[in-house]
Parts: sequence; C-alpha cells; structure tokens
Amino acid sequence: MPRLRLALAQTNPVLGDLEGNAREIVRFTQDAVAQGADLVAFGEMAISGYPIEDLALRPSFLAAAHARVELLARELADAGLGDVPVIVGHPDGPFEPRLLGTSNAPTAIAQNAASVLQGGRVVARYAKHHLPNYSVFDEYRIFIPGDELLVLRLRGVDVALIICEDLWRDGGPVGRVLHADAGLLVVINGSPYERDKDEVRLPLVTRRAVETDTIVAYVNLVGGQDDLVFDGDSVVVDRDGTVLARSPQFVEGLLIVDIDPEGATETPLPADVQRVELTPAAAVDESSVAASSAPLPVVIADLPDDREQIWNALVLGLRDYVQKNRFPSVILGLSGGIDSAVCAALSADAIGADNVYGVSMPSRYSSGHSRSDADDLAERIGLHYRTEAIADLVLPFETQLGLTDVAAENLQARARGVILMGLSNQEGHLVLTTGNKSELAVGYSTIYGDSVGGFAPLKDVPKLLVWELARWRNEHAAARGETPPIPENSISKPPSAELRPDQTDQDSLPEYDVLDAILEAYINGGHSIAEIVEQGFDLPTVERITGLVDRAEWKRRQSAIGPKISRTAFGRDRRLPITYRPNR
Amino acid sequence: MPRLRLALAQTNPVLGDLEGNAREIVRFTQDAVAQGADLVAFGEMAISGYPIEDLALRPSFLAAAHARVELLARELADAGLGDVPVIVGHPDGPFEPRLLGTSNAPTAIAQNAASVLQGGRVVARYAKHHLPNYSVFDEYRIFIPGDELLVLRLRGVDVALIICEDLWRDGGPVGRVLHADAGLLVVINGSPYERDKDEVRLPLVTRRAVETDTIVAYVNLVGGQDDLVFDGDSVVVDRDGTVLARSPQFVEGLLIVDIDPEGATETPLPADVQRVELTPAAAVDESSVAASSAPLPVVIADLPDDREQIWNALVLGLRDYVQKNRFPSVILGLSGGIDSAVCAALSADAIGADNVYGVSMPSRYSSGHSRSDADDLAERIGLHYRTEAIADLVLPFETQLGLTDVAAENLQARARGVILMGLSNQEGHLVLTTGNKSELAVGYSTIYGDSVGGFAPLKDVPKLLVWELARWRNEHAAARGETPPIPENSISKPPSAELRPDQTDQDSLPEYDVLDAILEAYINGGHSIAEIVEQGFDLPTVERITGLVDRAEWKRRQSAIGPKISRTAFGRDRRLPITYRPNR
Repeated sequence: MPRLRLALAQTNPVLGDLEGNAREIVRFTQDAVAQGADLVAFGEMAISGYPIEDLALRPSFLAAAHARVELLARELADAGLGDVPVIVGHPDGPFEPRLLGTSNAPTAIAQNAASVLQGGRVVARYAKHHLPNYSVFDEYRIFIPGDELLVLRLRGVDVALIICEDLWRDGGPVGRVLHADAGLLVVINGSPYERDKDEVRLPLVTRRAVETDTIVAYVNLVGGQDDLVFDGDSVVVDRDGTVLARSPQFVEGLLIVDIDPEGATETPLPADVQRVELTPAAAVDESSVAASSAPLPVVIADLPDDREQIWNALVLGLRDYVQKNRFPSVILGLSGGIDSAVCAALSADAIGADNVYGVSMPSRYSSGHSRSDADDLAERIGLHYRTEAIADLVLPFETQLGLTDVAAENLQARARGVILMGLSNQEGHLVLTTGNKSELAVGYSTIYGDSVGGFAPLKDVPKLLVWELARWRNEHAAARGETPPIPENSISKPPSAELRPDQTDQDSLPEYDVLDAILEAYINGGHSIAEIVEQGFDLPTVERITGLVDRAEWKRRQSAIGPKISRTAFGRDRRLPITYRPNR
Repeated sequence: MPRLRLALAQTNPVLGDLEGNAREIVRFTQDAVAQGADLVAFGEMAISGYPIEDLALRPSFLAAAHARVELLARELADAGLGDVPVIVGHPDGPFEPRLLGTSNAPTAIAQNAASVLQGGRVVARYAKHHLPNYSVFDEYRIFIPGDELLVLRLRGVDVALIICEDLWRDGGPVGRVLHADAGLLVVINGSPYERDKDEVRLPLVTRRAVETDTIVAYVNLVGGQDDLVFDGDSVVVDRDGTVLARSPQFVEGLLIVDIDPEGATETPLPADVQRVELTPAAAVDESSVAASSAPLPVVIADLPDDREQIWNALVLGLRDYVQKNRFPSVILGLSGGIDSAVCAALSADAIGADNVYGVSMPSRYSSGHSRSDADDLAERIGLHYRTEAIADLVLPFETQLGLTDVAAENLQARARGVILMGLSNQEGHLVLTTGNKSELAVGYSTIYGDSVGGFAPLKDVPKLLVWELARWRNEHAAARGETPPIPENSISKPPSAELRPDQTDQDSLPEYDVLDAILEAYINGGHSIAEIVEQGFDLPTVERITGLVDRAEWKRRQSAIGPKISRTAFGRDRRLPITYRPNR
C-alpha cells in the first residue's frame, strides 16, 4: 500500500489581491515541501479570495486570475518546488457565455476551478460541478458548471479532486469517485462558519469516506470576508471514518499527515472522468520522502465549545475587516450597556486595545451607572477613552426644530452618530456599530444614529447570546488569571436605550427570552404566525413582533455588514422586499 | 378561422396583499367580460405581486397564495364570470424541496405558476420552465422549474401558455409551441423597465410570433416594487409580425383585441405537452360574443421618447413606493441645485405638490443663489417650504470636537440629515435622498448626511441625464402652457456641494461628460481600466475614478433603494464585495 505525505494549506487570502495571495501560496508550499509533502492542496479560490461575486462576470478579472495561476506554476518551479503537485483553487475563464437564448442580461463566463501545478505548468484542471445558489451563495448566477471528474495518478495512487458543494450533493462527482476506484479524494472548500455547522460537516466528510471507500482530505479557507468568516477546520478522514488529522479553527496553518491510500487499479474509467498521470519520471525516484522520513506527530485539534467558537468567529471577522481594508483602528460609543461592552472586548481581542477608541456620550437621561460602567470597561480593557456629552449638541436641534417624543429621542442617538462619524473622519478610525440581531430584527434602533458605522460585530448575535458571550469571555479571562474585560454590572443590569428617563427595553419589547425565541422561529425557522403561536406564544405578541420585523426591512437594508454566525443572517442570506403588505 | 376576443389586464399588484390583488383581478375581469372577452390574462404573479424573493421559501406564504387562487376561482364564478377562462400568475406550493443532497440550506419549495380559472375552479396550471438567475433575478434560488407545456383548447383554438423568461430562451417551451401547432401563445410577464429594453422586447415578441407562426399575446405587470418599475407595454402581435394592439406604458389598463388565430388541428402532441379542453359545453353556444358584437377600436399606443419614458418610470417608482408603503407625504432638502430640483419635480408629479415638503438648509458657505434658486423652485412647484439654517446647529459640534477640513465639511451635510430625519419622525414624511448615480458611484456624498432617506429617486440616473431630464421636463411643461418646474439657474450653474467657500464638484472630479462616460464603461460595460483607456481617457483619471468606485462600495451598501432604469443599477443588479484589493 503506497504511503503519501499530504499537506493541506489552510490560508487566508485577501479578495482580489492576486499578488499577495500568490506569495502566500509559494510560502506555504515551501514550508510543506520542506516537511516532505508529496501533494499540497489549497482552498477554493485561494488565489483570488472567495466569494468573488460579480467579479466573475468581468473578463479582465478572469484573465488576470488565469494568468496569475500560470505564473504561479512557473514561480513554484523557479523556487525549486516544481516536483510536488500543488492544487490551487481559482476562477477560470473567460469562456463563451452560457447560453441564455436572446436575453441581453450578463451571463456566466467563468468556472469555479482547481488547477494542479507541477513542473512549472498547469498539468490538470477541474471545474466545480455543483453550484450552490442558496443562502449567501449565488454561484449559478456567475459560474458555468463543470461536467468531468478529474483523477490524478500520483505515486501509484488515484487522487480524485472535487470542490466544496460537489461533496454535499449525492450524485454527480461523488458518485463517480466510487466508480473511478480512487484511493484519495481531495476536496477544496470555501465553507463559511455557521453555528453548529461542524455537526453537519464532519459527519458528511466521514460518510463520504465510508461510502466511497476513499480517504477524504478536506481543506478549507480561513478568514473574514465581509459578512462571512471561513473557519478552516480542515480535516483528513480515513476510509473507515477515522479522523486522521484536523486543523484548529480560525487560524492559518499547514496540516501535514501521512496516509496509506489504496493503490491505483486498472479499472476502466467512465467516459466523463479524465485521468492525468502526475509524476514526471525524471524528477522523482520510487521511494517518497514520506516513506523514508520519520513519522509525523498526529494533529487532531479539538473544537472548543459553542460560545468560544462564536467568539473566535466574531474576532476573526472583525480583525480581517479592519486589516484587509487597512483601517488603523476602530472607534465605538460606550454606553455602559452590554452590547458596546462586548464589542469593545471583541475589538481588543481582534486588533489590540491600543487600536480601540471608546467614546462615552452621556445625555441628560443617562444614568450614573452608564458612565461609571463605561469608565470601568475602558479601564479593564485599556482602550483609548474619552467623554463627549451630547446635551449642548442636541438642544439647538430640539429647540430650532421643535422636536418632541420619539423625534427628540432619536435626536440624541443621531447626535452620537454625528460625533462618531466626525471623529472617524478626523482621525481615521473605522466606526463600529454595536447593535445586536434582536434589535436589528425589530428595528429597535435609530437609523443614522446608533446604527452608524462600517461594521457591526453583533449583527447576527441575538441579545441573549450577547449576554452568554459576555459571561463566557469573563470566565475565560478568569480561568487564565486575567482581568475579566466586561463589567459585571453591564451584564446584570436591565438593558436600556436611555433616551428618556427610566426607560428600559421592556417598555416596548417583550422579555428577551420571549423575543429571541419568536425571532428564532420567524427568521431562522421561517415559521408562520400560526405556527409560532402553536409553540406557546400569545397571538398579539407574535403579531406585533413579526410586524415589527417586516416593517424594519428598510432599516436593515441600510445597515452595516457584520459576521454571519447563524443559519439565516440578515443580508444576502435573507432576501425580502421592503414594500410588502403581509396578508394577515 | 375562429375569432377570439382577448383581454390583457395590465395590473399593479401590491406585494403580499393577496386580498387587495384578488379584488383587482375580479374588477378587471368584470370589465373584460362586460366588453365581451373570451379569454382574460393577467401578469406574472398578479395575485401576490412580484418579485416575491425569499417569501417563496415560506410554506405559509405559499399555502395562503394557493388558497387565495382557489378562492378567486369561486369568487369569479359567484360574480357570474365563471364561463370565461381567466389566466392568473401566482406562486405555487409548497412542494417537496428540490433535492440538494445532504446540504442543510433552505431549498426551493415553490413554482412560478399560472393557473387557468373557469367554472369556479382551477382547470389547468402551468409552471415556468426557465428561471432567470441574473441581473436582479434570483429565481433559481427560490423556484423549482416546470417541465411541461400547457395547451388550452378554447373555441376551437389551441392556446399555449408560458411565463416571461420562457419566451426569451431558445428551446424549451418556445420550441414546443411550434410542435404543438398552437394558434395563440399567451405570455404572462413581470418584466421591469430598463432603458432601451423596448428595443429588445418588441422585436423578440415579433420574432417569436413569426418563428412559431402563432399570434403572441404578451401581458406585463405595471407599477413600482422597491427598486423595480414594471412598465406594462403589453402587446399582441399577429403571426406575420404585425402589431395588433399595444398598451400605454406605466398605467394600469385592459387591452382588448379581436384576433383570428388558426384553428386547432389534430396534430398529435409531444409527450411533454398537456392539453386541456376549456369550454364547458353547457355554458357557451357556438357563436362567441366577439363574433357577434361590433368590431373594437384598435389600440396601438406609441412609446414616448427616451427621456419621457425615464421620467415616467421614475414618477411611477416613487409614487408606488410612497403609496404602497402608506406614507402621507415626502420631505427633501432643497439646495438650489439640479438634483434636489429634479427630485422635487418628480415628487410633485408622483403624489401632488401638496404632499411634498421642501427644506432649504443654508450654511455659512451657501451662496445667495442656493437660497434664491430653492425659493424659486418651491414657488414654481407650489410645494410646502421652510428654511432651517444650520450654522447654529453645526458650530457646537465643530467646537466641541475640534473638527476641521473634510470632517467639518461632512458635519454640515450630517446636520442636514439630522434635520430631515427629525422632521420625518415628527411629521411622518418619507425622506427622499436626492443624490444621483454619478455621485453614488464615486462616493461623492456624505454618508448619514445628504444620503439619509428611504428612497432615492435618482439613484440610477447619472448626472448628465439629470440635466437632460430637467430640460425635458421644462420643455414638456412649456409645450403644454404650464410653468416649467425647474429654475433655469439650477440647470445652468456649475454643480457644487457648497461645503466650503467657492467649492465646485470639479474641484475633486473630472468634468461630468468624462466622469459619466468612464462610469458607463466601468459599471454598465464591465470594462477594465486598460479597455477604458483605449476608449480615449487618460490612465490617471481612469485609475482614480475606478478606484473611487471600488472604495465606495461600503457606502452604496448602506444607501437607500431607488428605481432601476439602466442595465446595471446599484443594488442586487451588481453584487460586489466591500473588502476587495484590486490587482492593479
């Protein structure tokens, strides 16, 4: 039985940065080859970043990516890495447009591809067969599906290569892997984090390994890209379902593992499978490095618990948004409440407290604790901190315009928005908006007020989960002998927008355990009012809450992006009209 | 040769309002039957409005729409309209989810369908075969395609029925129409307005009529739905390509026409075509109403010129956003400039000047003409008008925060945003944001400042076209002996944001003829920098402008919706990442 040393490179590409991403691919390949790898695999679209969205419709972008892959093959060879086959995901094209009859709409001219680089050139290429077109994905819009399975023969092993969604669907490439009698199935992925997805993903990989009697090597991207966080979690599973190796989540790295795949047989291949002989005879002798070198330590990373995973996803999503867009720092309002406290703690974990600027913006209605809790938070975290009272800023508007009630309340939030944007314009910080998913769902926020900002770390985090995360982060700090970053009082006090005296959120909303349960059923579950009532909630409350959700669509459409952690995040995951008269 | 009297009902449904839309369908059917129609056809999704987006993923929504169609059939019969077949578009389902293997993503459970109602029940049903998944459409995400052609036999004529995209694609249903030897092809549509689309649509209908040797009846929706404006323009084309009837654009109405289709033959049908015999023998005698009644006047509406079509599209899009969302009125800032002047004129045309509120918000940098031109505009249009100077509102922020340069400039725009939102909150108006497409493209606006608002009438209108529309609207008024609404000085003076003394747009941007041409090539054309330079623009300018476009994506993502009039509007028509490092 042949032995192969396999390297899965879990990299964090920057979208569009073909040069920078190619440099990283060379660097990881050098490291893998130095450790004796026989085959190196990178994630889906590792050369361009993912998802590329409508950039796939631009011929010039596709031509540049195509050329960059060819150049990368030569660079690898020039760096003495030409013997080892390297699998790299990339957009391919431009091809002839997919035929849409007489329509004059833009049509797909690209494929979602993987190339195999060896000896200074592209020796084989595979195009993704199954194109996801649900949730956040629009691949049927932008890609032409592939229709041929690729099998690489490497050191006497048949290696099948597929891309992401291909693994999830029965039929198509997965079915052909079995008939091709491959020893190893390499799947390159751009699979974003979603809460509890690991409970689906690993069992799927395991099932496919057993079904196809093939070792499955699953390599995923890592890193934040706008509202998506790729979690890595690359894994290699033996044909009996045993996990042979697993990368830690949310960090870049090489996963190197020795595997013993079944040797190639001379089974005739189906017509829609292309076989490419990989090893150039001159370059490699019979005994591989893996076979001759010392055994590798086995890396099987444990997944941390749910709350830690979410925290890590939020931290990485925020860090990459800041760094990939080259912001020097972030700024946020500190109200003394739980949302801004958690955002500040996330920011410090993401980019260091020295790059975090907090502003306390008390009004005449702000409680004493709103200031003292914000002070306490700033001190615990060690962030830059200033106070800008808003009374003198709000009063001229209120007086000149004669605003009262909700109009006057919103004025306070908007004055805070103007302050944060002014400081951002003056000093260069990215403004973070601190609202949570529950608020965004029911429109419990002031548009152009507390909603200002370029990134919303808690956009997909319901209020109850915000509290849970705060408690977890404090426990995590305590367990490591560090100062818990979040003031206990910010966690325990009743939440309030403090836009009028003694206001609390529950003046206008049900208790958060009720609210979040109804929102979960309506947004993630897609349940009807009647179904939610059957789950034990009263009709008037359900009608009111779902009505608020429907009517807040216009605000959400203008809201900042934030990292997706749930099955149905607001944004391209949930596409609904603004103009909508529910049939109630 | 049989004669049929055909009624195409060009209606304006409200999205989600099954009850209201059903009432309209009954009303139009009554009118059609009173005029002797033998067959009545409504547009795509006439019962629910269109596009329904992810509402198609909700079983409860589908069940409600399904039930409402069945009820509509009974209501029509109860109203004495049961003899005449009525074709109505609607979402159908819920069906078993389309198989996506082991993925846990939401999958399509609906079809985009048309039902034929007669005798109190649904007698036949067709499901759209070709699902558009480009431009603003995501139908592959939400619908299961149909796979069978429907032919209705009515008064000895075979009537084929298809839906919108089915007509555009070669092959599929259109190919089968020929083999089915039908006498009439009814196409129900939800086809949004786009500049110059009529130059494609009518030739397509004509071509299909000739190709299939069939009379083609094309019925479209009308009305605004968020960022789309359905333009109607329903048409009937004879099998030799002659236009027999054409509805005026942008208005509801019945198009009634007598046609002489070829009689049904006994050609055997292909297996994937279902034939339904329509006429209940008892209910109808041999001589149809059409055959016995006087000939109808022929209605063939002319299309107005490009600028008038665009103006009408913008007016209807704005009117329907206001009215369908039940706003009593709109409010907008009047700067004396061309954008706000055109928005005010559009508003008055859409909902009447008495429902339009203008606010002049001069700063210390505002020129004399900015006030006098705004005064002049308000008087010409007769809208509600007030002045709120911003100096006393801005100064406290500037002083307290020590803001300078761009930060101080933006402060002025943000103070104006706070004023408009405050008045909106206090008085209930919808805030209009007046920016144009050129500004939005390059980010030449202050986010949370002049960009505040729920609807942006000029979102898809480049600056040069704003001027053209202004001139057209004034000429149009003059030709009808009315006061031209837009002050000549607002059209002729150099555009300026007036955020600092003597500022003009061309301090930071190229001349608008250059800017708009580069934007057209980059955004609508999808051309690369090199290609744009080849078109005769200098490299530094092209690099600067395309760079501004790329970097303004985060602002556009938070911008208000506005009516699409171009091939590539900002919004779901053009999906690009925010985090993106171009490879230059």
